[in-house]
Amino acid sequence: MKYPSSIQNLINHFSQLPTVGPKTAERYVFYLLRQSPEFLQKFAQGLAELKEKIVVCQNCLAIAESNPCAICSDNKRDKTKICVVADTRDMLAIENIKQYNGLYHVLGGVINMVEGIKPEQLNIQQLTDKIKQNNAKEIILALNPDLEGETTAMYLAKLLKPSGQDGIKITRLAKGLPMGADLEYADEITLINALKYRINL
Amino acid sequence: MKYPSSIQNLINHFSQLPTVGPKTAERYVFYLLRQSPEFLQKFAQGLAELKEKIVVCQNCLAIAESNPCAICSDNKRDKTKICVVADTRDMLAIENIKQYNGLYHVLGGVINMVEGIKPEQLNIQQLTDKIKQNNAKEIILALNPDLEGETTAMYLAKLLKPSGQDGIKITRLAKGLPMGADLEYADEITLINALKYRINL
Repeated sequence: MKYPSSIQNLINHFSQLPTVGPKTAERYVFYLLRQSPEFLQKFAQGLAELKEKIVVCQNCLAIAESNPCAICSDNKRDKTKICVVADTRDMLAIENIKQYNGLYHVLGGVINMVEGIKPEQLNIQQLTDKIKQNNAKEIILALNPDLEGETTAMYLAKLLKPSGQDGIKITRLAKGLPMGADLEYADEITLINALKYRINL
Repeated sequence: MKYPSSIQNLINHFSQLPTVGPKTAERYVFYLLRQSPEFLQKFAQGLAELKEKIVVCQNCLAIAESNPCAICSDNKRDKTKICVVADTRDMLAIENIKQYNGLYHVLGGVINMVEGIKPEQLNIQQLTDKIKQNNAKEIILALNPDLEGETTAMYLAKLLKPSGQDGIKITRLAKGLPMGADLEYADEITLINALKYRINL
């Protein structure tokens, strides 16, 4: 006893999405079965056209609406500051807090030994080129505080420091307790970091 | 700062799937951005064609490859047993254990006061018709052991019992400890049920 092939086929496609297993995919498909054909058509069209309309900014390598993107072509931005992020999503997260006025550089991932992602596969050459070109003064490594992010940050710090022009500053985002956290329930490493990087008041 | 419209549009579509929020939808879309255009085209085609190729068996109301479905048109099936399920997925789950030889009836949901799903919206009339037509002897209510499933089971039991031909049996799936469960960690209601419905050895 199996599903009709059109259902099974769509379940297989959804199953390939990250964190989606066959059961979740089934759930999605059965939800879609209850939607209007118009909704399905529009959803399908969005999928089919996803890549056609996408532009990658050749300067910061972010997915954008134009090349160069709005940020890279903004003259009011401080070109001597470069914030290094893993992907466009992280860049948008930082951009949305409206506190940063420098440029970005999208690595296109992080070093990941398990998945076999090596430094050569990341946009590192473009980063070093840009640092020289812009005569950059600060590189902010805005990578996730997890194993892969830390490895990548270490690698980049080592790579950029010695080659660096005099006075180039390499920083990374602060680690500590997130707002609203409960000391009692904070994990050990977060608490260790919170204590280690404590701030003078 | 926003995503290009083709990305935002697809994020909005994925966000409508059950349990998918904007962040998860974003993750899906960024995963898809790394896939080949062929994959996206096939995924899109599957979506667009989902409903076109779907048939509903007019007998058991399940989604199937033909009408009547393979089960309803199988003469070796015991037509006096009807297993009532909420949807086609539950029917397949039971069918896959290969222990049941009767027919099915798909309700198309369960009574849900919160979401405003009333008995009139379920395929109950067709069920009572089929019971009379087949001169059914047993109705197995295979509904989830949650609030909505129990409510629906109660409603159906009450509806079918008095109207029933002499000797019609209304049963439901057993409640108790699932295989591999740990008594210590079982929730209270499961443990209460396990004790209440204990079996003679």
